[in-house]
Amino acid sequence: MSSNTFGTLFKLSSFGESHGKAIGGIVEGCPAGLKIDLNFIQSELDRRKPGQSNLSTTRKESDTVELLSGVFNGISTGYPIGFILKNENQQSKDYTSLKDVYRPSHADYSTEKKFGIRDFQGGGRSSARETACRVVAGAIAKLFLKRYKIVIKAYVKQVGTITLNKEPEQLDLSLIESNAVRCPDAKTAKKMSSAIAAAKKQGDSLGGIIQCLALNVPAGIGEPVFDKLHAVLGHAMLSINAVKGFEIGSGFNSVSKKGSELNDEFIAKGSNAIQTKTNHSGGIQGGISNGMPIWFNVGFKPVSSIAKKQKTVDKKGRSISLEIDGRHDPCVLPRAVPIVESMAALVLADFLLLSRGNKV
Amino acid sequence: MSSNTFGTLFKLSSFGESHGKAIGGIVEGCPAGLKIDLNFIQSELDRRKPGQSNLSTTRKESDTVELLSGVFNGISTGYPIGFILKNENQQSKDYTSLKDVYRPSHADYSTEKKFGIRDFQGGGRSSARETACRVVAGAIAKLFLKRYKIVIKAYVKQVGTITLNKEPEQLDLSLIESNAVRCPDAKTAKKMSSAIAAAKKQGDSLGGIIQCLALNVPAGIGEPVFDKLHAVLGHAMLSINAVKGFEIGSGFNSVSKKGSELNDEFIAKGSNAIQTKTNHSGGIQGGISNGMPIWFNVGFKPVSSIAKKQKTVDKKGRSISLEIDGRHDPCVLPRAVPIVESMAALVLADFLLLSRGNKV
Amino acid sequence: MSSNTFGTLFKLSSFGESHGKAIGGIVEGCPAGLKIDLNFIQSELDRRKPGQSNLSTTRKESDTVELLSGVFNGISTGYPIGFILKNENQQSKDYTSLKDVYRPSHADYSTEKKFGIRDFQGGGRSSARETACRVVAGAIAKLFLKRYKIVIKAYVKQVGTITLNKEPEQLDLSLIESNAVRCPDAKTAKKMSSAIAAAKKQGDSLGGIIQCLALNVPAGIGEPVFDKLHAVLGHAMLSINAVKGFEIGSGFNSVSKKGSELNDEFIAKGSNAIQTKTNHSGGIQGGISNGMPIWFNVGFKPVSSIAKKQKTVDKKGRSISLEIDGRHDPCVLPRAVPIVESMAALVLADFLLLSRGNKV
Amino acid sequence: MSSNTFGTLFKLSSFGESHGKAIGGIVEGCPAGLKIDLNFIQSELDRRKPGQSNLSTTRKESDTVELLSGVFNGISTGYPIGFILKNENQQSKDYTSLKDVYRPSHADYSTEKKFGIRDFQGGGRSSARETACRVVAGAIAKLFLKRYKIVIKAYVKQVGTITLNKEPEQLDLSLIESNAVRCPDAKTAKKMSSAIAAAKKQGDSLGGIIQCLALNVPAGIGEPVFDKLHAVLGHAMLSINAVKGFEIGSGFNSVSKKGSELNDEFIAKGSNAIQTKTNHSGGIQGGISNGMPIWFNVGFKPVSSIAKKQKTVDKKGRSISLEIDGRHDPCVLPRAVPIVESMAALVLADFLLLSRGNKV
Repeated sequence: MSSNTFGTLFKLSSFGESHGKAIGGIVEGCPAGLKIDLNFIQSELDRRKPGQSNLSTTRKESDTVELLSGVFNGISTGYPIGFILKNENQQSKDYTSLKDVYRPSHADYSTEKKFGIRDFQGGGRSSARETACRVVAGAIAKLFLKRYKIVIKAYVKQVGTITLNKEPEQLDLSLIESNAVRCPDAKTAKKMSSAIAAAKKQGDSLGGIIQCLALNVPAGIGEPVFDKLHAVLGHAMLSINAVKGFEIGSGFNSVSKKGSELNDEFIAKGSNAIQTKTNHSGGIQGGISNGMPIWFNVGFKPVSSIAKKQKTVDKKGRSISLEIDGRHDPCVLPRAVPIVESMAALVLADFLLLSRGNKV
Repeated sequence: MSSNTFGTLFKLSSFGESHGKAIGGIVEGCPAGLKIDLNFIQSELDRRKPGQSNLSTTRKESDTVELLSGVFNGISTGYPIGFILKNENQQSKDYTSLKDVYRPSHADYSTEKKFGIRDFQGGGRSSARETACRVVAGAIAKLFLKRYKIVIKAYVKQVGTITLNKEPEQLDLSLIESNAVRCPDAKTAKKMSSAIAAAKKQGDSLGGIIQCLALNVPAGIGEPVFDKLHAVLGHAMLSINAVKGFEIGSGFNSVSKKGSELNDEFIAKGSNAIQTKTNHSGGIQGGISNGMPIWFNVGFKPVSSIAKKQKTVDKKGRSISLEIDGRHDPCVLPRAVPIVESMAALVLADFLLLSRGNKV
Repeated sequence: MSSNTFGTLFKLSSFGESHGKAIGGIVEGCPAGLKIDLNFIQSELDRRKPGQSNLSTTRKESDTVELLSGVFNGISTGYPIGFILKNENQQSKDYTSLKDVYRPSHADYSTEKKFGIRDFQGGGRSSARETACRVVAGAIAKLFLKRYKIVIKAYVKQVGTITLNKEPEQLDLSLIESNAVRCPDAKTAKKMSSAIAAAKKQGDSLGGIIQCLALNVPAGIGEPVFDKLHAVLGHAMLSINAVKGFEIGSGFNSVSKKGSELNDEFIAKGSNAIQTKTNHSGGIQGGISNGMPIWFNVGFKPVSSIAKKQKTVDKKGRSISLEIDGRHDPCVLPRAVPIVESMAALVLADFLLLSRGNKV
Repeated sequence: MSSNTFGTLFKLSSFGESHGKAIGGIVEGCPAGLKIDLNFIQSELDRRKPGQSNLSTTRKESDTVELLSGVFNGISTGYPIGFILKNENQQSKDYTSLKDVYRPSHADYSTEKKFGIRDFQGGGRSSARETACRVVAGAIAKLFLKRYKIVIKAYVKQVGTITLNKEPEQLDLSLIESNAVRCPDAKTAKKMSSAIAAAKKQGDSLGGIIQCLALNVPAGIGEPVFDKLHAVLGHAMLSINAVKGFEIGSGFNSVSKKGSELNDEFIAKGSNAIQTKTNHSGGIQGGISNGMPIWFNVGFKPVSSIAKKQKTVDKKGRSISLEIDGRHDPCVLPRAVPIVESMAALVLADFLLLSRGNKV
C-alpha cells in the first residue's frame, strides 16, 4: 500500500483534484522499446470523458492528455512517463455554499476528519475526475499487454434492476461500444438506457454491475499468499469511486454451492495443453492464473450526487436541506467501463513483469 | 504489493509451507511499549487450529507460537517480532501419489506453471496452514487496537444455503463463541451444524459468508485514492484461501437501489458529534472511515478438498480418477472467523499508524 | 528501493528528461495544514538554476515551478502535490551527432545497455536537470522541518585541491550565500573561484566536497538495522549526479583512529539534557539520531562534460575524437549545495513522519 | 526504505536481538529452481562467526543456520526461505548493571529516545549479531549470482594505519582466506595482525577499510535516478555496524582530480565488446553498470566496545566510570568481510531481477 501509487514494477502515481489546475501522473516501469500510440491513449480517455451521450453529465472536459517524458520518437525509453490533463472546467462554479456542508454519502465529512482541512471544490481528490489518470496509465498497460496478446474487455452487466442474463461466452464483445450504455446486447442496452433516463428525470441515480474479462493471460501470474491475483484485482476495483463489491469467477454465487458442484475439472486440450472444463475459478486458482479466461464482477452503488432534495447537517451539526447541482451522471457505469479495464490492465502488466523473476 | 508481506507500517511477513519444518513470520512496526499478552495470542490461534470440534478436520496441530524477538519483559520494544509455529504433522503422510496430479480447483497446476517446480506435499504455500501466521500478527494488532478501544468481531452469516437473517444490530455478539459454527444465533447455528455434518457424510464441502464488524474506529482512517480503506480490506480478505467475494456495507445489494434510497443522511448526535442515520456506506465514505461501525461480508467458496471421487488429469494430460484423503474441513468458515478478524486488525492497525502522518 | 521514487511516507516521485517538454514530480505525504510558501520554493530553485554566476554554464532556464495540486488557499491539503517545470531550452541544439557516440564517463553506454534504446538528447534522464525536482520537494520538506526548528545548511568545503580548513563550529553559516561558490569563508571562496575559472579556461572540470549540517534534529530518528539514518542519507547523496563518496561524522578519518580516541563521551547538559562531548558520530549512533548536530561530507568527482578534446568510441567500436559543447559547469559544487540540502531535508522529513509510529 | 527489510524483489527481512532466543529472517524473491547448497551457506556463516582466531572475541556461537521453508529436495521453490539461528550465548551474563547506562558511541541513548524502552541485553537489535542473517541471505544471493558467473570478493585493505598499497589488479584474491585478517597480501596481513594484537592488549579497538570487487556484472544493471547502483550499494554498506564511509571507484580521491584526468576513455575490445581504458568510475556510470569490474571502499570506525575505562553518564545524567567486558573484537574488519560481500550480493541479485523488466 502506498497511498497515491498503484503497482510494484509497472506503476501509476497520480495527483490532482477536480478543480485544480491539472491532474496528472507518472507511469513507471513501462519497459523500454514499446510503441506508445498516443491516439490510442486519447481514444481510451474519450471513452471515459463526460458528455459522451445524453445519459451522462453535460459537463465538458476535452480530457486531452499531454505526455511530458519517457517517450522518444514514439517509443518508450524505460524512463517514467509523466503526463498531465488540464482541468478546463475548474472555474465554472462557486462552491462556497458547500464549504461547511457534508453531502450525504460523499467523502466531505471523512476527509475533513482525516486532514483537518478540506478542498471543498467539487470533491477534491475524492472526485472521480482522478480516474482519467488511471485510464491514461491503463491504456499504456494495454499497449504492453498487446504484446502478450492479452485482451481486456469490460461491459455493463446490470443497471439498477435490469440485468444482462447471458454468460460471457454467449456475448458478442464487439458490440460493447455499439451503444451508449456499453452493454453488448442491444435489447438489454435499450432497457438500461430507459432506466437511466428515468432516473435522471427523477433527479436520482442508479448503480449496477460491470463484468470484466481478461483473455489470453498466461498461466502462472499472481502470488500465492497476500498478493493473490484476484486479491490485487479486488483492491484495484474497490479503489474505483462508488464500487462496493468485487467477486472473482462464481464469486458470491459459490457460497451456496457444494464443492463437488463447483470444482473445475482439469481436462487435456489437444496434445500439449491442459484446461478446465468449467471456469468457476474465474481463471485464477490459489491466487495464480491458470490460463483460462479471467472474469470478475464489480458492483457499483448509485452515485451519491443526486439532484433530489436531501437532508444533512453542516459543520456545526445544524440540519440542512440540500439540493446539489444536477450536472452529474445519473449512472456512472457506462463511463466506468474503461476505468475497470484500465485498472485490470495495470494489475496484469505489473504481475507480468513480476513473473519475470519467478524462475532462475 | 509485495508478495509475502502485508502492510506498510504495521506489517506481517510470513513464510512456511504446510509440510516444512515450521511456519512463521515477522511482525514489523508494532509500536514500542505495548504489553504483548502471549496467552491472548495463543487463544486466538486456538480459535483457528484444526480439530476444535467434530465439524472440522481430525488433523492435529497444537499450533503453539514461539515469539523469538521484539518483546522484552513482556513489552514490545519496537523491534520486529519474529515468531515460529512448528509443523507437528509434517511427516504423517506420503504425498508422492499426488506428485504429478492436478487436484481440481487447487493451486497445483497454476503453481507449477508459475515456478516450474512444485512442493507437492499438502499444498505447499497454498495451504491454509499459512493463515496461522496471520492470526499471530492479527492478535498483536488487536492488542494495539485495544488502546483505541477498537473491537473487531466476525461471525458466520451463511453456510451453504442456511442464512442468518438478522441485522448486525440485532445480534448478541457475545454468543459468537458459544457454538462450534461461530454464528451468534443458536437456532441458525444448529441448522448450519447439521448442514456441515451432512456435507461431511457425503464427502462434500460447503461455502458461506462471514460478516465482520469493526467498532469504534475513529473517523479519518483510510486514503482517498488507491488505498481506500475498503479496497485494502478487500485485498486483505480476498487473500484468504477460498475467498471469492468481498463487499463493504450494502455491497452488491446497493446495485439495484437508487441513490435517494441508499445515501446515508448525516445527523447531529448530542452536542458535538455527527453520525449517519443509516449505514449503507459500511462506515467508510470516499475510502475514509466516518466513525460509524465498519461492516463487510466475505464470501467463501466450498473448499476444493473433498473426499468424493473426482476426475482430473496428470502432468501428461492423462485422465485420472482421484480420491483425496478425507481429513479436510467440510466447511472452513468456523475456523476462518479469526482469520478474517486478524486481517481486518492488520489493516486497521496499519491505517491507524499511517494516519499519524495526516496532519502537521 | 523504487526507482523514480524517494522516501516512504514523505516522498518524491519525479519524471522528465533534460530535453523533453517538462520535468516534474509528485510530493506525497506532506502532512495537511502546512503553509506552502511558493516564493521560498522558487528561491531554492534559483539557488540551483544554471547561469547564476560566471562560474557556471551560460545555459538559461528560468526553472519556474508550477504547483498543480495538493495546495488549497496556500495550505497543504494532505493530497499529493503535483508540479512541473517546463524545459525552456529543449530545442536549442542538434544532438544527432551524439546519437551513436559514448561520451567518456557519461551514462550513454550503460543506459543503452540497460534499455536497448537511448534518448540521446542531452543525457536524457541522467542529466542533472532532474535534480530541480529534488529541490522543489526539498523546499517543501524544509517548510515542514521548520516546524521542528530543524535547519539544514550545506556549503562547499573543497574545490579541486583548495580546502576550507575550518571545523563547522568555527564557521559563520550566514556567509554561505555571500559568494558564488557557496563557501562560508571569503578567502577560501576566492581561491576556489580562481581555481574554477582556471579550469574553465582549460576546458576542464573540478570536483570537490560539500559538507552538510542538520541542526536541531530531535534524538530518536532513524532505524536500527537496514535503514540507519546515515545509510539513507548516504543513499540520498550518492544518488546525486557526480557524487562518488559519502561519509558521516568523522567518516574515513575514523579508520585510522583508536576506539578510545573516537568514542563520544556522554555528558549532562543542564538539569535535563544529555549530550556528547565530542561529535565524531556525526549526530547518529546505531543509525538513530542522538540530538547532536548531524554532519556529513559528500564527495563530487569533476563532471564528465569537458570542452577539451577526448578520445572515445562509437556504437560500432570505432575510435572517435570528441569535443563536447562548452556550455557546462566547470564545477557543479556551488549549484549542488541546494541539492544536497534538499535530499537531506527529504530524508529527515520522512524519518520524522516515520518516527510518529515508534511508540504506542 | 522499509526498516527491517532490504531489497525490492530479492529481499531479506530480518529479526532478532543478540540475547533473545534466536535471530532469523526471510529471504523473499529467490527465483525457483536454484540449487540451495546448505554447506555453502554454513561456510559463509563460519567466516563471520566469533572466535575464529585469536584476533577476535572469545565469545562462542556456532551460528548454525536452520532453513525452515522455501526449499524442496534441495531446490528453491520460489516460496520465501525462512531461517533461524539460535542464540546459544544468550544467558551468559547479567546486563542489569548496564540498564541505566549509556555506553559511549553505542546506540543505547538514541534507541531509548526512539522507543522509550530499551532491551539492554548486549545491544538488542543494534548488536552486530544481526549481521549473521545478512550472511545467510547473501550466501543465497551468491548462489543465484553464480549462474551469471558474477563473483564478489572483499578483503581488508586497511587496519588502523596499516594500508595495503596495491591496486586490485595486482592482488591474488585466492589469498584472502589464507590469513586471519583476510588481507590478500601476507606481509601486510602480518602487520595488521600485530596491530590488532597490540590494540587488544591495550583494551582498545581499531578501524579500517574493506575493499570489495564484483566481477562479471553485466552492463545495464542499476537505475538512473534515485536508485543508482552505487547509491544502493552505499545504502547497503552504510547499514553495516560501525561503517562510517562509502566510496565508489576513485571516490574521495576523485575530488582533487580534473575531469580530463578522471574520465574513463571508451575503447573497443575485440570485435564486439566495448570497455573503458581506466576504471575510475568503479564499473558504474550514471548509476548503471558498464560491464567493468565494480569496486568500492567501505570505511569502518574502530568499534565502540573497548575494555579501557571510559567516562559516561547514566539515565539521570550522573557521571559514571565504565569498564565494558572485554569479550569484543578489537577489530571487526576480518569478520566483516563476508558481511560486505553479502550485502553486495543482495544488491546485485535484486538489481539483476529488476533488470528483467527493463525491455519489452
